[in-house]
Amino acid sequence: MQFSSICLPAKVPIRIKSLHTNPPTTVHDPTSSATVAAPKWAQKTITLPPLKRGCHLITSKIVKEVEQELCGFKCGLAHLFLHHTSASLTINENYDYDVRDDTETFLNQIVPEGPSAPWKHTLEGPDDMPAHIKSSMFGCALMVPITNGKLNMGTWQGIWLCEHRDYPTSRTVIVTLNGI
Amino acid sequence: MQFSSICLPAKVPIRIKSLHTNPPTTVHDPTSSATVAAPKWAQKTITLPPLKRGCHLITSKIVKEVEQELCGFKCGLAHLFLHHTSASLTINENYDYDVRDDTETFLNQIVPEGPSAPWKHTLEGPDDMPAHIKSSMFGCALMVPITNGKLNMGTWQGIWLCEHRDYPTSRTVIVTLNGI
Amino acid sequence: MQFSSICLPAKVPIRIKSLHTNPPTTVHDPTSSATVAAPKWAQKTITLPPLKRGCHLITSKIVKEVEQELCGFKCGLAHLFLHHTSASLTINENYDYDVRDDTETFLNQIVPEGPSAPWKHTLEGPDDMPAHIKSSMFGCALMVPITNGKLNMGTWQGIWLCEHRDYPTSRTVIVTLNGI
Repeated sequence: MQFSSICLPAKVPIRIKSLHTNPPTTVHDPTSSATVAAPKWAQKTITLPPLKRGCHLITSKIVKEVEQELCGFKCGLAHLFLHHTSASLTINENYDYDVRDDTETFLNQIVPEGPSAPWKHTLEGPDDMPAHIKSSMFGCALMVPITNGKLNMGTWQGIWLCEHRDYPTSRTVIVTLNGI
Repeated sequence: MQFSSICLPAKVPIRIKSLHTNPPTTVHDPTSSATVAAPKWAQKTITLPPLKRGCHLITSKIVKEVEQELCGFKCGLAHLFLHHTSASLTINENYDYDVRDDTETFLNQIVPEGPSAPWKHTLEGPDDMPAHIKSSMFGCALMVPITNGKLNMGTWQGIWLCEHRDYPTSRTVIVTLNGI
Repeated sequence: MQFSSICLPAKVPIRIKSLHTNPPTTVHDPTSSATVAAPKWAQKTITLPPLKRGCHLITSKIVKEVEQELCGFKCGLAHLFLHHTSASLTINENYDYDVRDDTETFLNQIVPEGPSAPWKHTLEGPDDMPAHIKSSMFGCALMVPITNGKLNMGTWQGIWLCEHRDYPTSRTVIVTLNGI
């Protein structure tokens, strides 16, 4: 097994740590006397800069950081895993900013916040417990198919990071690619 | 690598495009001098016909279209990915139609729709923004274990397509199978 | 392919059935003349004892039952799949019990229950239809990255089982590990 590091220009605001990359390998196919590609894995950590409370389209940021690895996969799956419990990842509309704004409006209507909210967990601020709930509503992980070296999403689909805290911090995403 | 096409009778309403199928291969296991199965991948596109607004049980439709590939996997994972942002996939009760009907009732109660709704994104109709929100609530993807050639779901579990638009269109699902 | 059974002391309340384990194998890498690890799969069934209605932290229970397999993966993905439609799995805060209690409060506020609820599906008790809805809100499956033999979760992340029924029963989780 080989582990490789990928160096990026220093001015890129997104920090990446490559965890594992296994090299392209082949296995023998006895039914056709052909050599076929063995499954490959790549895993890296992406650190996104702080984003203000609300829903943000991050497709291009994510793709930019993994496209070098993605192009080596004919068929596979890309897994994105957010390391936090007060933000979430979801797939939704990639065009109109209002959709992201309306989704934030919905989340704030559905999850009570402030003095009248029934939460016991308030030590970390009035926005903290609502943030935890929103994180479980949308989830902290996504799995997207890979086809011919690209994320195989629909025309109008994009990857959103939903930041649920008032005072955001940088957010870590573990990207794991697996395929042939 | 081999790419294969799967032909179906013309009268089948669900259109399928096989994207990738890698052939069964073996790898050498030096610890036992045995030959073991190498991981396999299969990916295909299924186009579901338009379904009216509400929750629909689609387990048999999905299984029918991938059972030929499924039976080749002793252990693995099946990933379903909906190419849309105004419908969703979820796993829930597979027997009583009322459960699906009540779930549609819940979604309509929880997400405001119509003149009193607070949405800015209204150009595509009053049901469009609620549809986007419902899509993120339930999600557009599922991952189900494969065991001995079958989807390993619980006795009462089924795959639902939830259509959130009033005027539905056909819906595309990318199915990716991976296992041994 | 090898199938192995894992025996646990009889007093352990969590029952496990190992479904599939393929042995460590190697494949030849022609680009480097090196031998690299072939992808591995492991799948087992874990039966959790009944837990009362509410949200429960089960990270240590899950890890304890799969750590023997986990330590063999340098890079991969762990999939957890709950075999039920009236409970859910989610990832959220792992420290303060109040967060789990507040989340249960939220779920009960958002999903009507009792005589005034609009549900048609009531034969299995007033808590049954709300349980189905909550199950789709949070989902019945999780996918967590594996890095260097461990689940790669954030500092504050834990795996929760959310029991939505008043009279809980034991719950089955299928764990599938895949990686190198």
